[in-house]
Amino acid sequence: MTALQDQSTAGAGRTIISVDAMGGDRGPAAVVAGISRSAKKNPDIGFILHGPKAELEKLVARKKALTGRVEIRDAEGVVTMEDKPSHVMRHGKDTSMWSALEAVRSGDADVCVSCGNTGALMALSMVRLRKLPGVNRPAIAVLWPSRNPQGFNVMLDVGADVRADERDLLQYALMGASYARNGLGLDRPRIGLLNVGTEEHKGRAELKLAHDLIKSNADNAGFDFVGFVEGGDIPGDTCDVIVTDGFTGNVALKTGEGTASLIGDLLKEAFQYSPLSRLASVLAVTSMQRLKKRIDPRRVNGGVFLGLNGTVVKSHGSADATGVAAAVKLAFQLSQSGFSHKLAARVASAQEQVQDGSAEQSENGEKE
Amino acid sequence: MTALQDQSTAGAGRTIISVDAMGGDRGPAAVVAGISRSAKKNPDIGFILHGPKAELEKLVARKKALTGRVEIRDAEGVVTMEDKPSHVMRHGKDTSMWSALEAVRSGDADVCVSCGNTGALMALSMVRLRKLPGVNRPAIAVLWPSRNPQGFNVMLDVGADVRADERDLLQYALMGASYARNGLGLDRPRIGLLNVGTEEHKGRAELKLAHDLIKSNADNAGFDFVGFVEGGDIPGDTCDVIVTDGFTGNVALKTGEGTASLIGDLLKEAFQYSPLSRLASVLAVTSMQRLKKRIDPRRVNGGVFLGLNGTVVKSHGSADATGVAAAVKLAFQLSQSGFSHKLAARVASAQEQVQDGSAEQSENGEKE
Repeated sequence: MTALQDQSTAGAGRTIISVDAMGGDRGPAAVVAGISRSAKKNPDIGFILHGPKAELEKLVARKKALTGRVEIRDAEGVVTMEDKPSHVMRHGKDTSMWSALEAVRSGDADVCVSCGNTGALMALSMVRLRKLPGVNRPAIAVLWPSRNPQGFNVMLDVGADVRADERDLLQYALMGASYARNGLGLDRPRIGLLNVGTEEHKGRAELKLAHDLIKSNADNAGFDFVGFVEGGDIPGDTCDVIVTDGFTGNVALKTGEGTASLIGDLLKEAFQYSPLSRLASVLAVTSMQRLKKRIDPRRVNGGVFLGLNGTVVKSHGSADATGVAAAVKLAFQLSQSGFSHKLAARVASAQEQVQDGSAEQSENGEKE
Repeated sequence: MTALQDQSTAGAGRTIISVDAMGGDRGPAAVVAGISRSAKKNPDIGFILHGPKAELEKLVARKKALTGRVEIRDAEGVVTMEDKPSHVMRHGKDTSMWSALEAVRSGDADVCVSCGNTGALMALSMVRLRKLPGVNRPAIAVLWPSRNPQGFNVMLDVGADVRADERDLLQYALMGASYARNGLGLDRPRIGLLNVGTEEHKGRAELKLAHDLIKSNADNAGFDFVGFVEGGDIPGDTCDVIVTDGFTGNVALKTGEGTASLIGDLLKEAFQYSPLSRLASVLAVTSMQRLKKRIDPRRVNGGVFLGLNGTVVKSHGSADATGVAAAVKLAFQLSQSGFSHKLAARVASAQEQVQDGSAEQSENGEKE
């Protein structure tokens, strides 16, 4: 049986990614197709795949690119999109999601990828991986197409928790800056705090407190704080990281996605309207594909859970092979950069309120 | 002097719209160009225009379409975008904004249009027009391009107040439903309450309270309540009116606008990329214009202030002639439908908790 490899084979010199094969809207076939794409493109990735063994073995055996690259760990249970997080925490031991996180917890894999139920994945991650010392509320960060040279901005939290006080927002700033350094390669990310106006007197009381707290920590933490930003700055170029609570961030994320999707559909309609416009659509096809690639949510697929002992990439529930491959790519990149450890060090150092100039210097470069 | 008419001339059988000529980013010339367009298209509108008399007279004299249609009311002061609302409330008596609202307060005009400072306009509107009995927080409602047959959804509040408790959210539902009936011609609008998930257990505590309160009032108020909706439903077709607090609504509005604007720019870039794509852009030009018209924010220009004694339409600060004309059109439409009075009756009837079946029947049709 070529598809099933013991871990040492799959992992020979490779970055091991733990993948939950179940729980996505398109089932395990889409996940296996996605990791097969990743395996083809990147010889340095090995996978531990979690789900019903017999089913997964069949799927994996069909993909040549996965030969010798996958260890399958049997898990019969599946977390559905309808399962309540509290239920999964109590009764989810036999699920593929639990198993996928366990591989990170045990150190067998560097990072976990799942297309499953976000609430359950976050709840399980908190229980199994545990929060980093000093982190009160972990956050989910996403990449958002933007006008910045790097092509994307980071926004967090987009839905780990509906509440966030000023200390949580400061931690989001620290974690978001770390993600922008390691995920986008920005040395000194610019952080903005989401509000309904850029004037300092505007908005809710906790935002004014957060404004001052983040401002006073910016230098030590090695980022620039641009102050309050507005919704229009999320896809803009005034900052690289947008910090907000999980309620507002989730609404903004879904509003942006919904708006982009509506425009995409209206664009298709426009191209179908007349013989002339149909001809135009043929001529413009490569340009349109380039545009689509730039803003396709599947290509920036993957919310990253920040603030845990280990990295978890949450892929869209409806992710197809392209989406899963994008999530795996992000997971690989974060693992390669040693993101988990750098983030932990960053949060710990903010916790200790490092004031020493030389320590600050070396922290800014995110080297040990 | 043909441009300057006394009110009785400008108003002969016409719907009178009070227009603040100052305070927009493009100055009074754009405003005068906008109302000139409206005057050309619609013979039933007369204008009272507020600002520095000499300057406005010159601008109006140049537009033939405005002959006999405009009364100018002299106001030397201008509310700038930087002025704090509290300052304008105390010292703004000589401003064009104050004068424009005064014409509605006195009954000389049916509705007011301004491109000026939103915060100041709302603050002045509350002081001069006063809140409707039973309304705690007035709201700003906008139209949003959507997948619904009517082409637009209503969202409120988008920034009148950053807070809203469950009773405020109920009033937003009532006012938004009234706006959808009169602005979009929907007999029985479907109302959704914005949250981070559609399950009833999700989101903040005040949202659960609001959910139950709106649900229990839906029948009497003549709308359907679809329950919780998500950001993706704002441009969607699951409901016609999206109810939320002014903080979340403002962020969603600006995120959507920013995303649409980014996609528009990337689309232009894509069409410029190669000779082939440039040819395509020529062939597709009418289709693209149709699309642009459909989602152009200038064409749905105008946030409407709800919950006051009188209707105020807030046009975009950066509105050009097209934008101003769109705001005037909306103002005319709302005035024609007797919107202010119907909304007041609706809020009053909800206040009285009308339980009587026949009263409810006639209320649903919004007839007296």
